[in-house]
Amino acid sequence: MGTENYTEMWTELGLNLPAHEGLLQTLGKAYADVYLSQKNRPAGMAYLDFVMSEIHGLRIEELVKAKKQGQKVIGTFCLYVPEEIILAANGIAVGLCAGAECGTELVEQILPRNTCALIKSFVGFKLAGVCPYVEACDIVIGETTCDGKTKAYEIFNEYKPTFVLEIPHMKNDSDRRLWRSEIERLTDKLEEVTGNKITADSLRKGVEIVNAKRKAIYRLNRLRAADPAPISGLDCLLINQVQFYDDPVRLTEQINKLCDELETRVAEKTGVAPAGTPRLLVSGCPMAAPNWKLPNIIEKSGAVIVGEESCVGERGTRNLVDLSGATTREKILDRIAGRYLNIDCAVFTPNPERVEHVSEMTRQYKADGVVHYEIQFCTPYTMEGSAVRRAMNKDGIPVLRIETDYSMEDTAQIQTRVHAFLEMLRK
Amino acid sequence: MGTENYTEMWTELGLNLPAHEGLLQTLGKAYADVYLSQKNRPAGMAYLDFVMSEIHGLRIEELVKAKKQGQKVIGTFCLYVPEEIILAANGIAVGLCAGAECGTELVEQILPRNTCALIKSFVGFKLAGVCPYVEACDIVIGETTCDGKTKAYEIFNEYKPTFVLEIPHMKNDSDRRLWRSEIERLTDKLEEVTGNKITADSLRKGVEIVNAKRKAIYRLNRLRAADPAPISGLDCLLINQVQFYDDPVRLTEQINKLCDELETRVAEKTGVAPAGTPRLLVSGCPMAAPNWKLPNIIEKSGAVIVGEESCVGERGTRNLVDLSGATTREKILDRIAGRYLNIDCAVFTPNPERVEHVSEMTRQYKADGVVHYEIQFCTPYTMEGSAVRRAMNKDGIPVLRIETDYSMEDTAQIQTRVHAFLEMLRK
Repeated sequence: MGTENYTEMWTELGLNLPAHEGLLQTLGKAYADVYLSQKNRPAGMAYLDFVMSEIHGLRIEELVKAKKQGQKVIGTFCLYVPEEIILAANGIAVGLCAGAECGTELVEQILPRNTCALIKSFVGFKLAGVCPYVEACDIVIGETTCDGKTKAYEIFNEYKPTFVLEIPHMKNDSDRRLWRSEIERLTDKLEEVTGNKITADSLRKGVEIVNAKRKAIYRLNRLRAADPAPISGLDCLLINQVQFYDDPVRLTEQINKLCDELETRVAEKTGVAPAGTPRLLVSGCPMAAPNWKLPNIIEKSGAVIVGEESCVGERGTRNLVDLSGATTREKILDRIAGRYLNIDCAVFTPNPERVEHVSEMTRQYKADGVVHYEIQFCTPYTMEGSAVRRAMNKDGIPVLRIETDYSMEDTAQIQTRVHAFLEMLRK
Repeated sequence: MGTENYTEMWTELGLNLPAHEGLLQTLGKAYADVYLSQKNRPAGMAYLDFVMSEIHGLRIEELVKAKKQGQKVIGTFCLYVPEEIILAANGIAVGLCAGAECGTELVEQILPRNTCALIKSFVGFKLAGVCPYVEACDIVIGETTCDGKTKAYEIFNEYKPTFVLEIPHMKNDSDRRLWRSEIERLTDKLEEVTGNKITADSLRKGVEIVNAKRKAIYRLNRLRAADPAPISGLDCLLINQVQFYDDPVRLTEQINKLCDELETRVAEKTGVAPAGTPRLLVSGCPMAAPNWKLPNIIEKSGAVIVGEESCVGERGTRNLVDLSGATTREKILDRIAGRYLNIDCAVFTPNPERVEHVSEMTRQYKADGVVHYEIQFCTPYTMEGSAVRRAMNKDGIPVLRIETDYSMEDTAQIQTRVHAFLEMLRK
């Protein structure tokens, strides 16, 4: 993660250069340790390695250039914000940094210490001035998913203009109406921010781009059902993380190329780990980049992750927007609204779809066990943890619940628990 | 809190008798220590002392009798559930036990340890089998206020039938429509549970009863503006707590009698503490009975509490349902929905009304300082704490933020902080 050519750009964006330099060094080292140390990686991951090496460089340069040509950059923290509509307004959607401890001392002056690591992180990246994405943003779109984010956006808004979308917590007809009107409010806001009209045509193009990306990721996921698994969970997680930053059309092409390679691997029974390696599904809270701690421990312990039931995983990428017969702006927005309200985030009540999806994924990807990932103080997912455990136990699938944050202090402890879990699976 | 005559009734309700006996003893002792030890109490508090001595006895007997005559008992945990509509269905509304540590070991098997004390408590009272109110209930009405309650109701529902009302998190037109349709859904549910039709007439009667109760509490509150304060904060908190359990018509009469007495006190400048005693407003999380820890520390430290900005306080009791010109069932329900959506719970975003209300209360009741009460792990109120502090500081009103739970282990610590705060106010 080189800094040679970008100092001027980072200065113009208002980054805190010494702190940012420190972050890039840490990130570079972590990436080498976690990613580059992996064996038997598909050649197609070279593109991802390149993207990561330029994540604060080339990609930001692209955003800055696009902004100079009048495009707007729209920051998001949740997959409930439809990328299709941002693209339809000729905006660029970027997921914002929220996956590492950053600016914690500053954050704890304005947020309670008992706030989940992800929320502390996104506020911390802003306060510490080390996220070029948030600095490049023209607006941030928040949402009322959990209490923590809902209330933190009020405070975040004092540092960066934030437009908050209301997510209902049930899925009745009245919720669908509320959500549909929120989609309209977002559309109006994006038209105002970008100065562009959102039309049936532009929406259709946006949907096609995002559908193609999701199809490519779905194709990738299905290939992981093979034993041996042709690609690591770490690499797939990275793709799921990078899809929040990279240009969607370019990334889609690259994922499809990677899938071509993986198809050959599957046919030749070439794996990232030997056949018979314990196969785990990771389910629960999102893992924003560079939050790789738990999957790294799992895969370095001799298991392979075959699926992510997470916002940064299949929860976010499954389900396409169905355009068939939808020709007007209204109708396409209806379809987009409908697709998004299917997302089975734990903030919904009741939320049996999620538990069913976890179960379905264990069958589809032939998982031997589930690791339920819970960020400390994340009430929705920690509360749903017991329902997931019970359902999996009915299926005869063991569950390991891991509650943690972004610090590295519990690494050895988690390793011990993961080793014991794998030991049990091998019996 | 005698047990002599009620053992048979408690057995029939399915209580865990030895555990319940232990609870009553603890409660009786706490009540004597906290309440009966107070000096210069108004004579009218004798009624409240009596109610409390029979809180699991006579009042439960009344409920059981009413049930035998076909009435239904409806349990609630939140002031977003309109008592007016429950009364209109000829139901009896009771707030459920949630103010003491209870069944914690059982609770922590099904809920995360990082759950707020109030939620652990209501689940614990049910699991431990020591709350005659929840046992007497025909149904419990939950609500999607905070994440913790929203998700805990899914689990609670496995132990007691729970109907969950959706509370929006904003107050736009689409939220008003959602909330109005939730009110309709509640009305249908209550008709089904009670077997009674809810009509314009029955709604009007329900509204009149609840308005009268709120007017009486408002009258009580206004009398506390006097210096010396004619009544303690502990006693007023008790009234606010008991109004969730007692018969509303009877309690209203008693509060009005008490107010007559307090008017004489104010005229004679008789106070519960000398004129010039530091006057505090307590703002923040609800204090369900018997959660008296913080106000007890405050008043035993030589201050007087002159107002509660809380769900168990003015946040819940201010604002009446305006019936003028509303003659149809529909219109009255519109008015009820409107009144309730004015409640400025911290789960709403943004929520400037609450901060303004805190400020207004400090002026109205001539408070010298604000104690912001935060139950540990209550994200909405802990996150709003900094906004309250900033607004108060602009007004020149010092704020003490206290984050605690229901254990007594931090009593000395809180005492020290309260003493220091009072010291500072006296300077």
